[in-house]
Amino acid sequence: MEKNSAESTVNAGTREVDVVVIGLGNGGEGIISNLAGQGLEVVGIEAHLVGGECPNYACVPSKMIRHESMREHPAWDRVAHRIRRDTAHNWDDSTTTENLRETGAEIIHGIAELTGERTVTVRHARPDESQGKTPDGSPSGSHDSASDASTETVFRARRAVVLGTGSVSVLPEVKGSAGDVGQNAMAFPTAQETRRPGEPVRFWTHRDVATATTLPASVAVIGGGVIACELGQFLARFGVEVTMLVRGPRLMRTEGASEAEFIKGCLEADGVRVLTETEAVSVEHTESGAVRAVLSTGGEIVVERILAATGRKPRDPRATDVYCRVLEDGEPSSWLFAVGDQGSHGEFTHVAVPDGKIAADVILAGGEVDDVSPFPLHAVPRVTFTVPEIAGVGLTEDAAREKAEDEGWDVVATTKDVNENARGWIDELHGSMTLVADRKSGRLLGASVACEGAGEVLGALTVAVHEKMTVGELRRVLWAYPTLHRVIGDALAELDA
Amino acid sequence: MEKNSAESTVNAGTREVDVVVIGLGNGGEGIISNLAGQGLEVVGIEAHLVGGECPNYACVPSKMIRHESMREHPAWDRVAHRIRRDTAHNWDDSTTTENLRETGAEIIHGIAELTGERTVTVRHARPDESQGKTPDGSPSGSHDSASDASTETVFRARRAVVLGTGSVSVLPEVKGSAGDVGQNAMAFPTAQETRRPGEPVRFWTHRDVATATTLPASVAVIGGGVIACELGQFLARFGVEVTMLVRGPRLMRTEGASEAEFIKGCLEADGVRVLTETEAVSVEHTESGAVRAVLSTGGEIVVERILAATGRKPRDPRATDVYCRVLEDGEPSSWLFAVGDQGSHGEFTHVAVPDGKIAADVILAGGEVDDVSPFPLHAVPRVTFTVPEIAGVGLTEDAAREKAEDEGWDVVATTKDVNENARGWIDELHGSMTLVADRKSGRLLGASVACEGAGEVLGALTVAVHEKMTVGELRRVLWAYPTLHRVIGDALAELDA
Repeated sequence: MEKNSAESTVNAGTREVDVVVIGLGNGGEGIISNLAGQGLEVVGIEAHLVGGECPNYACVPSKMIRHESMREHPAWDRVAHRIRRDTAHNWDDSTTTENLRETGAEIIHGIAELTGERTVTVRHARPDESQGKTPDGSPSGSHDSASDASTETVFRARRAVVLGTGSVSVLPEVKGSAGDVGQNAMAFPTAQETRRPGEPVRFWTHRDVATATTLPASVAVIGGGVIACELGQFLARFGVEVTMLVRGPRLMRTEGASEAEFIKGCLEADGVRVLTETEAVSVEHTESGAVRAVLSTGGEIVVERILAATGRKPRDPRATDVYCRVLEDGEPSSWLFAVGDQGSHGEFTHVAVPDGKIAADVILAGGEVDDVSPFPLHAVPRVTFTVPEIAGVGLTEDAAREKAEDEGWDVVATTKDVNENARGWIDELHGSMTLVADRKSGRLLGASVACEGAGEVLGALTVAVHEKMTVGELRRVLWAYPTLHRVIGDALAELDA
Repeated sequence: MEKNSAESTVNAGTREVDVVVIGLGNGGEGIISNLAGQGLEVVGIEAHLVGGECPNYACVPSKMIRHESMREHPAWDRVAHRIRRDTAHNWDDSTTTENLRETGAEIIHGIAELTGERTVTVRHARPDESQGKTPDGSPSGSHDSASDASTETVFRARRAVVLGTGSVSVLPEVKGSAGDVGQNAMAFPTAQETRRPGEPVRFWTHRDVATATTLPASVAVIGGGVIACELGQFLARFGVEVTMLVRGPRLMRTEGASEAEFIKGCLEADGVRVLTETEAVSVEHTESGAVRAVLSTGGEIVVERILAATGRKPRDPRATDVYCRVLEDGEPSSWLFAVGDQGSHGEFTHVAVPDGKIAADVILAGGEVDDVSPFPLHAVPRVTFTVPEIAGVGLTEDAAREKAEDEGWDVVATTKDVNENARGWIDELHGSMTLVADRKSGRLLGASVACEGAGEVLGALTVAVHEKMTVGELRRVLWAYPTLHRVIGDALAELDA
């Protein structure tokens, strides 16, 4: 449980520094690393774990789970141990923190708040609030040497304040559910769950999966997007009985319809029951401690756990321009930046990392952006690491058609079956690729692909979209025979652009 | 055995047509397909099998062998049957021929010779010379309806003659070997082998592997390049005892040294014995019919078969420009084209196919090249389908350094371990990527990569090299996390350009 702010605090006075970074996930860490050795006084503040969501709960643990799930005999014990040992370091960030301090920056564990122009107020955390507890409540190996009482420091940033506080799981509002009771907390929940009839049902999030030492026998996943598809499938591959409750008519609305349909088949082949146009309308504990969910379609299911995977939202969203400057009334701030999930560029590690570089470049250039490369908003790739993967870059056909009138596009799209490609046929692979283009300019607007290796095939499409290549120019590219990415050429040949 | 030309021939007179295509592999077939429906009179002549080497003996069969070799229990029977049924069609090209005839072109099985300007003399083959025999000598299903006697026709091409006669296996000159006794023939060898002491040793080529119904227990592979590495490893994965005799100090001289070294380890892990700086100086049959090879390093080995995989050379090489026009004294011909292995663009299916498009475009434009896209010589990708793959595009570091003085380049290169990449680490993958750039212009000159999925990772690099992207621009590309192709970003970060 977090201490409330009524506790005794000591105001340690106002300190002037060059840069204050709030939130030390991929974006904030990147800022600090990129500013290293430049003679600037930099302070970074993290309320939970340095490194953020990606190595501790999200990308890396889930891909470790995926990797283990692809073995002939997946063992949860083995991957739970690997997550704990190799990426989350028992959810103790002392080494990561020390490494970041080697840049010369001051790293504080605490709660930071933007309290005025260029002004950040930090309430230093006691070790057991911000870190130093593993998810099961036992103390971890090493602590900050903070004093026992909370102290407060006010920083004034000469050059910049950078916000990188990331995003939180959206917990669906379902009658009988407990809401957010620590799933998005900046400290590990220590309260024991009460799984009795009449008690509210605490939903799992990806954090619970990443930190689980044992798996439930059955899980209902609420959601049909990236996290729902990945974790739903992985859990099924470990033998968990998985039911996905998908509000809309299909999975993976961020990707092409053919590709999403193919992935649905793959999930089902792994034993996942996918219920589309289905919501949980109420949940309650049964006598045995399980969860009974009444469905919008009339029936009900009884499962051991409910995993909420209905997306993420920034803790404190900020509109940013391509230089990561926070926009206020459409005007870029001269001192306030936001990076990663908190900004407008997309909720991806591969957005947070370059954001951290771009913001650092602008800060180092004294706020001038003329020599700084802007963020390539038009070419943000996406990979969902289901088995096989589903990946995309640029716009889906639906998204392109929505924008067509405003942009003056004549949208064309074509879908190719991967199995019709020489390699797909030889290696007995399945899936599809959809390319979307503007017939008028000939520009490739986007691509979706679902098949074994889709994430790697996406690399070529990412460069093509990044370079704003036309379909005509892209048709001239030589694709090595018989690679799977030659399906790009197959699709281009059929694209009416 | 081929009939010799002393047989009776009937001269059927001279015929004027628009285009004569000699050789109907990927390039020649492409020409004909691309000219279809344009109202041109087109004649195509093939001396052996329509479709050429790729579907009948090379790319497709070898990748089918690879795919089978990756199963837990590879079965040669199964893949031999699949090759026969699904790609080589029992080495009977009647269906392929009929399909090509549907373009409206006249397809002749016969021996064609360029006998003057725009003039091609064709000796029509009897069915049992050009096709209709399977490798084991039994007649195949269907024949051309050619008459029993050879006939000769002279064609005069109003618009163009296109040469696409492909390449042949280079057979190493080793004392005691039989030389080319049908391995590169335009007909299937029907002579039985004599495997007795004192008889010359007939080397296997990839054609023998692709058509084999059973495998030898042991094979010595002469060579260290693409075909040697692929087939050597695949055979080992089927349980064949494989020894590679590599003249030079390393495998895969067409790719980066680190990547080649990694692949060597992979071959060895599959049981291949790789002997570098080793040649077979003489070969002879033993009493049991096996082959004893004396090695340049002093020892000898006894194996059941010797597989010659020392590269390929065009049957009739022609220098071509980027429009596939044959160069004579440096001047492009107005009527003579060469495509695929016979031209200068590289010996790849993914070269032959676009060659066929480019040559057709020039022919359709009446010889004008202004509106035709030239062949992108600077961005020809290469993939060797070992397990895992080794792939490249553009120049290797060695090749770039050789050209540096002439081109005015300051060559820099960097090699990254794939296992240091997040995905490589999570999925326990190994291998490396080397990027080569010119420090002066910042241009990416080439890349080599060896790891699982290397051929797909190459797609992004192919587009980058095709687009002549600078290292600076390429650093701005967003690579989805955690894909394996993010190693491109890792390498770019370290590249001093």
